[in-house]
Amino acid sequence: MRKFVFSEDRVNREVIATLTTLSNGFVSIRGDPEFAESRHGTFVSGVYSFTPVFYREIANLPRAHALYLELDGIPLAPESVKYSLDTKGGFLETDSVLASPSGRVSYRSQRFVHKVLKGLVGLKAQIRSLDASGRLCIKAPIELDTVNPSVPPEISVKLYRVLSAERGDFPTVDVETADGRYRLRVVSIVRLRGGCGAGFYATGRHIGQAACLDIHPGDSISLERFAVFGLKPEDVARQASETARGFESLFEEHRACWEREWEEIDLRVEGDEEFAAALAFNTFHLLQLYNDEGKVFMLPARGLHGHGYRGHVFWDADIYALPFYLFFKPEAARKMLEYRCRTLSAAVENARRSGYEGAQYPWESADDGFEATPREVPLDLAGEKRVRIRTGELEHHITADVAYAVDLYYRFTKDEEFLERCGLKILVLTARFWASRARWDPARARFVIRNVIGPDEYHVGVDNNFYTNVMAKHNLELAVHYSAKAYSDPKLRERLSELRVTQEEISRWAEISSKLEIPCRDDGLCEQFEGYFELKDFRIEPGVVGEENLPREVISSVHRYQVIKQADVVAALFLLRDKFPAEILEKNYEYYLQRTTHASSLSLPMYAALALYLGRTEEGYSMLKKAALADLVDVYGNTREGFHVGSAGGVWMAILFGLLKIQAGKSLYYERGASLGRVTISFNIRYRGAKVRVEVQGLPHA
Amino acid sequence: MRKFVFSEDRVNREVIATLTTLSNGFVSIRGDPEFAESRHGTFVSGVYSFTPVFYREIANLPRAHALYLELDGIPLAPESVKYSLDTKGGFLETDSVLASPSGRVSYRSQRFVHKVLKGLVGLKAQIRSLDASGRLCIKAPIELDTVNPSVPPEISVKLYRVLSAERGDFPTVDVETADGRYRLRVVSIVRLRGGCGAGFYATGRHIGQAACLDIHPGDSISLERFAVFGLKPEDVARQASETARGFESLFEEHRACWEREWEEIDLRVEGDEEFAAALAFNTFHLLQLYNDEGKVFMLPARGLHGHGYRGHVFWDADIYALPFYLFFKPEAARKMLEYRCRTLSAAVENARRSGYEGAQYPWESADDGFEATPREVPLDLAGEKRVRIRTGELEHHITADVAYAVDLYYRFTKDEEFLERCGLKILVLTARFWASRARWDPARARFVIRNVIGPDEYHVGVDNNFYTNVMAKHNLELAVHYSAKAYSDPKLRERLSELRVTQEEISRWAEISSKLEIPCRDDGLCEQFEGYFELKDFRIEPGVVGEENLPREVISSVHRYQVIKQADVVAALFLLRDKFPAEILEKNYEYYLQRTTHASSLSLPMYAALALYLGRTEEGYSMLKKAALADLVDVYGNTREGFHVGSAGGVWMAILFGLLKIQAGKSLYYERGASLGRVTISFNIRYRGAKVRVEVQGLPHA
Repeated sequence: MRKFVFSEDRVNREVIATLTTLSNGFVSIRGDPEFAESRHGTFVSGVYSFTPVFYREIANLPRAHALYLELDGIPLAPESVKYSLDTKGGFLETDSVLASPSGRVSYRSQRFVHKVLKGLVGLKAQIRSLDASGRLCIKAPIELDTVNPSVPPEISVKLYRVLSAERGDFPTVDVETADGRYRLRVVSIVRLRGGCGAGFYATGRHIGQAACLDIHPGDSISLERFAVFGLKPEDVARQASETARGFESLFEEHRACWEREWEEIDLRVEGDEEFAAALAFNTFHLLQLYNDEGKVFMLPARGLHGHGYRGHVFWDADIYALPFYLFFKPEAARKMLEYRCRTLSAAVENARRSGYEGAQYPWESADDGFEATPREVPLDLAGEKRVRIRTGELEHHITADVAYAVDLYYRFTKDEEFLERCGLKILVLTARFWASRARWDPARARFVIRNVIGPDEYHVGVDNNFYTNVMAKHNLELAVHYSAKAYSDPKLRERLSELRVTQEEISRWAEISSKLEIPCRDDGLCEQFEGYFELKDFRIEPGVVGEENLPREVISSVHRYQVIKQADVVAALFLLRDKFPAEILEKNYEYYLQRTTHASSLSLPMYAALALYLGRTEEGYSMLKKAALADLVDVYGNTREGFHVGSAGGVWMAILFGLLKIQAGKSLYYERGASLGRVTISFNIRYRGAKVRVEVQGLPHA
Repeated sequence: MRKFVFSEDRVNREVIATLTTLSNGFVSIRGDPEFAESRHGTFVSGVYSFTPVFYREIANLPRAHALYLELDGIPLAPESVKYSLDTKGGFLETDSVLASPSGRVSYRSQRFVHKVLKGLVGLKAQIRSLDASGRLCIKAPIELDTVNPSVPPEISVKLYRVLSAERGDFPTVDVETADGRYRLRVVSIVRLRGGCGAGFYATGRHIGQAACLDIHPGDSISLERFAVFGLKPEDVARQASETARGFESLFEEHRACWEREWEEIDLRVEGDEEFAAALAFNTFHLLQLYNDEGKVFMLPARGLHGHGYRGHVFWDADIYALPFYLFFKPEAARKMLEYRCRTLSAAVENARRSGYEGAQYPWESADDGFEATPREVPLDLAGEKRVRIRTGELEHHITADVAYAVDLYYRFTKDEEFLERCGLKILVLTARFWASRARWDPARARFVIRNVIGPDEYHVGVDNNFYTNVMAKHNLELAVHYSAKAYSDPKLRERLSELRVTQEEISRWAEISSKLEIPCRDDGLCEQFEGYFELKDFRIEPGVVGEENLPREVISSVHRYQVIKQADVVAALFLLRDKFPAEILEKNYEYYLQRTTHASSLSLPMYAALALYLGRTEEGYSMLKKAALADLVDVYGNTREGFHVGSAGGVWMAILFGLLKIQAGKSLYYERGASLGRVTISFNIRYRGAKVRVEVQGLPHA
């Protein structure tokens, strides 16, 4: 369907490498070319280890897809590299000219990370001599020296150790994460088409195969390389044996699976080619992050696309990305929540450590669910400059966000099994957290939540943050609601009694939620937190994204201003849009939009969602499109560190809930008159086992 | 004179690499073979940068001496490696067989770090095909990916950044330390004998030259590789141009310089071949650590031989190594003290930070003289296990050790210029430190020094440590003595007045020194610190070195025992042997020897010194020999981390001051009847411009 072509002439290789990352939700490799050295090895979903500063992070595992070319002993260097990501077939093609003093070769490759054989990376290279003559040697190593970059950037950490590196039938390496929690096997297989065999070699850092042959102008060589990764040796052996089928057979199977996936969704966008491309691009990356064989779906904020945020999971998953999966891959949505189930006991421990009750989900979550937010980030090697980070300590709304996601999932799926096994427990334990977190303020006769960070992280340690309080209230209400429901269901009632939920506790939740401070003025304007309206005012030009254009005095003491980083009041209002009258949504949208820098990629999708919900089509679409292009045009300047899952997912959230106003019912309800101006969108979604075609009809062209 | 042959069959490569390190005191490279990957690049004396945990450390700079060989694209791997360190000529030879599926080659090389051209490393390789046929490619890169290992060992730090890597006439790289304080240029030059030229290549990590040629059984190839390092481009250019002379000419010049050096010293040892070898080996390494072109001589505890103690300077330099240089290279001894001069203002700042006056030398000193001892060393990546290190805070005797060295140097050299320019200032400022450090204890009417660590680091935070107090008293006495002397010399008097030294202050020093607590009992036994004699007693078998054989309950709570790690009372008694009657020396030597584990390499040389001084020839020689073999037989199990400068120097200290009882006078006095049993030693030393032949006549064989 769509090819995305990138060239190093215009875009930095590290940015392209994120954009052209291939993954099947288990194994992930960035798109940097196999013929060049790279710091980036392989990510395997869920394989984390302890690390300085960031608690635990996803390990940069051995790189097993390189193909190093040398002509007469001189490494060939690229003169030009063109990348073409085929999202329809889920593969990456490169087309390059490589040069050395003995001449130039053209180098073309195709690469996939197999959609079904989850451990398998396949690569086929076609090398043709343009004017090169000489001895061409090709090396295909498993590189055992990949490390995780740390902070400051001079520091790196090796998160695995090599247990064995052996010849076997093919070079085979067993590694173990530095903490000993995970073991991984890597096998590398090279097949030269109709040529001589490849020889085995090993140095301290590399183990692999190499082959040489003489080339002359016009000669062509074709080469297949496979790498198989797996946590279980038997999985690796099985998939390695599949490679005997050869690249073409595996590649065709892989592409066919992708094509089926796309047919299933049948996404069509017309009227704005750029937006259509961006939406397809984001959809491709969201789809490839899901491993349907996994028991849980752990979705890092930057995907499996880079070291940004260290593979940690944020509310980006539960709030921004979940709607996409809920409608396109309901199983994936369930497995996202299974991840929160699996880490529920860690959340209980997090609450205990903070001095609260119930379950407190960590602001940043790694594989084990303990708080993984860095508390302090060193900025220099001298140990003099450090940034203190307080989100792990204070950004508590994540706990309500998880509860929100549980309810959303249940309402649309009616997945009773999940509710009974885990969902109810999450709702009860998170409500308990808020019940212990909120404090009674006798002076105003309200419950208050003091000292938090809301979604807008410019203002730290504030009291009664609107988003936090509204979501906490909702969390308590959900616990009340589902507990009531549980009383009429024998199995759920059993769960309640296991959790020792009493009528008194339920009443307490109801009381706290009804008396929790929600600071809105009589005119309908809600205050982001206590004292916000007393801060200095500053308006931001419409359409400006990021902090670059702010006056220095504003950005250097931004906490003294009403300037905010991202949707906060607006986020709560959108998420709980049924609970507020339209005038309040309108009023706050207008007020806060003018004061938001959108310096977080989570901002535009939320504003777009509310704008579309309010029928502000033009500005909503403008923000939606900008959000959809976040990575393709590197809006936030950090695409090199990974894909923006929250932004990509948030665009779909805005379409599904903002524009289409999808609601659960016996069958799916959505607003048929929704408009995106001239843009037409249609796609299939899944709703309780059925396929539903959803359409937004574009206006006719003028 | 002597060749030291090592084989990987018997000794670990990392240990051999320390033992075969080549240095000229400016550039240093470890002995690991050039045909294998290595973590070790190049040390350049004085080039340090900020680093986590260790404050500043010597940078592991680019490796520019590798020669990677590939046959038909397969890296050749060693089947056997033999190393031969020629200490007479100051070079390293290797003799190896390298193998690949296409056959085996013999590989022989010679390597030097030029004794005169301080930036120049030279290497000649001779490769002969045994039964190999195929295309042999040779790569000679400058490797730009060397990093410093940190703690825990999974962490590494890149202490330099590449400013430029260019082709030029030869591959040329400019790097800068991460802190921006030092810039270094590296040039790499390859010359193939009578063969085709080498081509230039660059990858992200390597820049260098490569060449290929066909080989058949019996064919030989000879290759020369040079690397030039320098802080100034003009020095690099000059030395690079010298390489046009070719390897043989430079190599001959280098060897001739070393031969002259050895002729000058003319060290002869007979009667014990093993001891003779060890003494020559240590002498070679001590000699090659001195750069006669340097303005200061900064001598790290582990030489320029490894990352042990991170290139930090300890009292090992001032107390243990200085005597060797004082008599063999008086200029080197002066430059060691110049290092303490250059860092005197940092020592003043160290004192201020600790709340004291005057100058406090740091326990561990890097290039800038600030306290560089780690306070806490992380043991795991999870940040859970840490070791607290208190020596930087409490091991204060280093300040008196520096003062002791200044006096020793002056007494033997009468270097008035040094005394006036710097020596007097060190003596005054260090005395001021002790005057502020000692406290009046009215109960016993003595000055006391509380809360220190003495040389024996098993006992932490003790009061009135014998070594510390005796050396502090000496330091104060030296200040009194030299101040008195200064009054009769116009120039020195001017220094005194610049330092605002008054008669009152001098009287104060005299008073403190005369009333400083020196805890010796009436029977002549001195207590290592207050309360030491009340600790549990435990005797160690004679001759046992290290902690391995101690009962677990002793080593796990060693601070509760009289067991000590190294000479402490005995060190003070030996250093100030003229101030104590022989009976006290005897009594304390016997008492403490039985309680010492010698787990520090500084212990045996000091006990040997006092034993020999006391005429206990047999046991003294036994300890002397063991100390001399410290690295050659890896007594302390950490030779891989570097050469033990203190041990190697300490053996000479024991010979010069313990055995020979050298004393300064109009001409040099030494005890002619000194005996080492059957061992005969003779050598030339320098004394006030004259060459003096010193002899220890061995007993005739039975």
